[in-house]
Amino acid sequence: MRSSASSVRSQIAETIAVGSELLVGGRSDSNSLFITDALGTIGVEVRFKSIVGDDQSDIAHVVKAACRRARIVIMTGGLGPTVDDCTREAVAAITGFRLARRKEALEGMRARLAQWGRIPNTGQLRQALIPSGARVLLNPVGSAPGFALTWRGTHIIALPGVPGEMRAMVQQSVIPYVITQLEGTPSQCRQPLTRMIFHTWGMPEADVDARLMGLVPIRMPVALGLLASPAGVLVSLTTKGEGRLKEGALAALADKVRGRLGEWIYAEGQDTMEQVVGRLLCEQKRTVAVAESCTGGLIGQRLTQVPGSSEYVDRAAVCYSNRAKIEMLGVSEKLLESHGAVSQEVAAAMAKGMRERAGVSVALSVTGIAGPGGATDNKPIGLVYIGLDGGNDDVMTKEFRFHGDRSVIRQRAAQAALDMLRRWLVGRGRT
Amino acid sequence: MRSSASSVRSQIAETIAVGSELLVGGRSDSNSLFITDALGTIGVEVRFKSIVGDDQSDIAHVVKAACRRARIVIMTGGLGPTVDDCTREAVAAITGFRLARRKEALEGMRARLAQWGRIPNTGQLRQALIPSGARVLLNPVGSAPGFALTWRGTHIIALPGVPGEMRAMVQQSVIPYVITQLEGTPSQCRQPLTRMIFHTWGMPEADVDARLMGLVPIRMPVALGLLASPAGVLVSLTTKGEGRLKEGALAALADKVRGRLGEWIYAEGQDTMEQVVGRLLCEQKRTVAVAESCTGGLIGQRLTQVPGSSEYVDRAAVCYSNRAKIEMLGVSEKLLESHGAVSQEVAAAMAKGMRERAGVSVALSVTGIAGPGGATDNKPIGLVYIGLDGGNDDVMTKEFRFHGDRSVIRQRAAQAALDMLRRWLVGRGRT
Repeated sequence: MRSSASSVRSQIAETIAVGSELLVGGRSDSNSLFITDALGTIGVEVRFKSIVGDDQSDIAHVVKAACRRARIVIMTGGLGPTVDDCTREAVAAITGFRLARRKEALEGMRARLAQWGRIPNTGQLRQALIPSGARVLLNPVGSAPGFALTWRGTHIIALPGVPGEMRAMVQQSVIPYVITQLEGTPSQCRQPLTRMIFHTWGMPEADVDARLMGLVPIRMPVALGLLASPAGVLVSLTTKGEGRLKEGALAALADKVRGRLGEWIYAEGQDTMEQVVGRLLCEQKRTVAVAESCTGGLIGQRLTQVPGSSEYVDRAAVCYSNRAKIEMLGVSEKLLESHGAVSQEVAAAMAKGMRERAGVSVALSVTGIAGPGGATDNKPIGLVYIGLDGGNDDVMTKEFRFHGDRSVIRQRAAQAALDMLRRWLVGRGRT
Repeated sequence: MRSSASSVRSQIAETIAVGSELLVGGRSDSNSLFITDALGTIGVEVRFKSIVGDDQSDIAHVVKAACRRARIVIMTGGLGPTVDDCTREAVAAITGFRLARRKEALEGMRARLAQWGRIPNTGQLRQALIPSGARVLLNPVGSAPGFALTWRGTHIIALPGVPGEMRAMVQQSVIPYVITQLEGTPSQCRQPLTRMIFHTWGMPEADVDARLMGLVPIRMPVALGLLASPAGVLVSLTTKGEGRLKEGALAALADKVRGRLGEWIYAEGQDTMEQVVGRLLCEQKRTVAVAESCTGGLIGQRLTQVPGSSEYVDRAAVCYSNRAKIEMLGVSEKLLESHGAVSQEVAAAMAKGMRERAGVSVALSVTGIAGPGGATDNKPIGLVYIGLDGGNDDVMTKEFRFHGDRSVIRQRAAQAALDMLRRWLVGRGRT
C-alpha cells in the first residue's frame, strides 16, 4: 500500500465541480477528466474528485476537506453572473480573503465583451469580484475570470465550468502557475504520470483481457486497465506515481500491446476513429460518401466533426424511407420488395448507388433495425448490414447482431461501419 | 443562505464512487445519479458526491470526510474479487470493525453462482468478508454482497459498482433500510424532493435570469437554478429538504416560469428538442426532410434517435461539397457562384430543393462555417444560415452568428434549426 496521503501531499490534487445540476441533473462532470490529464503531464496526480451543489456552506465544507488532503485544489463552476454562483463567496468565507472588484479582472472582461459589441451587465460585474491576494486568471474565451490563491499551504484555483473556457484557462494559466508553485518540490515527486491509451474495436473485453495476460511484469510500476463501452474496449497503461520506471520500459510495453492486439487497435491516445479514417483518406487522396439508414446521420456527423473533413467527405444521405433509398441511391424497388430494406443485398446496392452517384472513391452503407420497433420473426432488433463499395466490383457486406438499446445499437453500427472503412483503407494503403 | 450543514445533517446524503478508472478513464460515475433519484423519493437529499481511486488510505480519507457532513453515505465499487478492490478493508480500518467471512454472505453468493453452474473461487471468497456488526445486503444479480453499518451516527452503505447490481440492491435493500434507520427523524425532514426542469433556447442566460428575477418568494423552500450549455439555458425549480411547501405552490411557480419565458421554453423535464419536434410532426401528420451542410448529419442523427421517427423523417442529405448541393438538392450553380455556399439565398434554395425532391410537408436546411478553416473577410467562423420551406411560398431564412469551437457551433446550429422547425410547427398547429 502506498504511503499515507499527508506525507506525499505535495503531488496530490483534487478537483471540485460546483453545480447543483451535477448532483441531480443527469449531467456529468467531464471537466475533471481534462484537468486530470493536464496535471498528469506535469507529474501532479488527481487522487480525489468532489461534486457539490450551488450552496455556499456545502462548497465551504468540500473545499476545507480537500485542503486537508491535497496540495492543489482545482474548482470548476459557480463563477457565473447569477446569484446561485457562489464559489467566490465560499472561498472568501473560508480563507478570510475579502472579495473586491479587481481592475485587471474587469478590464479583461470589458475587452472580451467589447469584441461582441456588449458592455458588462450587473451580473457580469459580480464576476470581477476576486478574493484579495488572489491572482486573477484571465478568461480568453468567455466573460468570467478565474483566480488562484494559496491557503494553509494548498493552492486553490477557481475556474469557470464552461468546458471551452476551462480548457483554455488550464492550458494558458493553470499549468504554468502550478509548475511555478511546485518548483520547490523534490523532483522525484514530479515525474510526469504517463498514460498510454489503445482503442480497440470488435473484440470482446474477455478476449482482449486474455490476450494481454501477464503483459506487465510484477513490481513494474505500471497499471494495465481495460474499459468496455459501445465504442469498443479501451486499453490503458498508466505509470504509477511511486517507483521509477526504466527508460524505454513503457514504450516496450506499448509495443507488446500493439503486437498482441494488432489491427484490432484502431487508434491510440486522443485519436478518434473518424480522425484515423480521415487521415487515411487524405494520405490516399480518396473521397468518401455515406448512405445511412438506421444510423440516421451519425456516421456523417462523426466524419464531418473532424476539422478539414470537407477535403474528403463529399456527401451523406440519410435514407429513412424506402422511397428515399430508391430516389437518392437508385436502389431498385424490386430488391427492396424481395429482400427487405434490412438485407445484405440492399446494403450492397446502397453502397454501390452512393459511390456511383457521388463519384467518390469509396462509399459506405448501413441498414438495420435499431429498435425498439421494426423487428420481425427472422429480423431481430440489432440486426445490421454494412456495405462498402470501393469501385471495380470491390464490394463487401457484413452482417452484425448488436445488443443494447436503440442508442447503443446505432453507436455500435456507426463504429463498425467506420472500422470497416478503416480496415479497407489500411489494406489499400499497403498495396 | 441555508442553515449550516451540521444542523440539518439528518437528511443529508453523500455518494462515494470508488474506482481508479473513474479518476482517469474517461468513464463517468452514473451510479450516483440513480442513487440521488432513489433517495430523493424518500426525502433524503444527496448534497455531496466524491470519487476516489482504488487506494485504501485515500478511500479512508474520503469516507471520514463524508461522515462529518452526511448521515447517509452510499459507496459504490471496490467490492470486486481482485486485490485492488479494497472498500471492505478501508471501511473496516476506519470504523474498527474487524472483517470476517459471513455465512449469509457466502451462502447468498454460493446460491447465485450455483445458478450459473459455478462455485466461488478464491477471489470471490474474499467478497464474503464483511465488517463485524454490519448488515449483509444480498446481491440478487451478481456475486458481490454489500453491507450496511452505523458509525458515529452515520449510516455507511457499501454496494458493488456494476450498475445493474447496484440498482437492484438500492431498490430491494437500501431504500427499505434507510427508511427504517430514519424512522426517528421528524417527518417534515422527509418529504420527497421534487425537481422541475424547463429547457430554453435562444435567450442569453443573463436575460433568462432577468426575466425570472424575484420569481421565488423569500423563505419559500425552493431553489431556482440556471445552467447554460450549447443546447440553451436550462431552468430548474428544486424543492429543498427543509421547510414545508404549500400544496400546489410548486405548480404555481412552474406556471409563472412558463408565463415569463413563453415560447423560449422548448421542452420540460426529460423531454428533448427532437422529441418535442417529433411529437408535433406526428400530431400534425407532417413529414420532414433535412438538408445539412456544416452540421454534417447532426440534425438527421438527432431527429432519428427518437424511437418511431421513421413515421415522420423521410430523409436527410449531408451536402458537404457544392456538387452535392447541386446534385442532391438542385441548387443552381449560378446561385452558388454569385452568393457563395454560405448565404441566405443558398439556404433557401437548399430547403426548397429538399422539400420538392422529398415530397415532404416541410424541409429544413443549414449552411455555415463551423471552422477552424473556411472563413473569409466578410464571412467569419460561426456564420450560419438556416432555411425552412413549408410549401406554398412559405419560406423563411435566418442568419446566426455563433461563438465557440467547431463542435459548439455545429451543436448550436443544429439546435437553432430544430427550434425554428418547432416554432413553425407550433404556429401551424394553432391555425
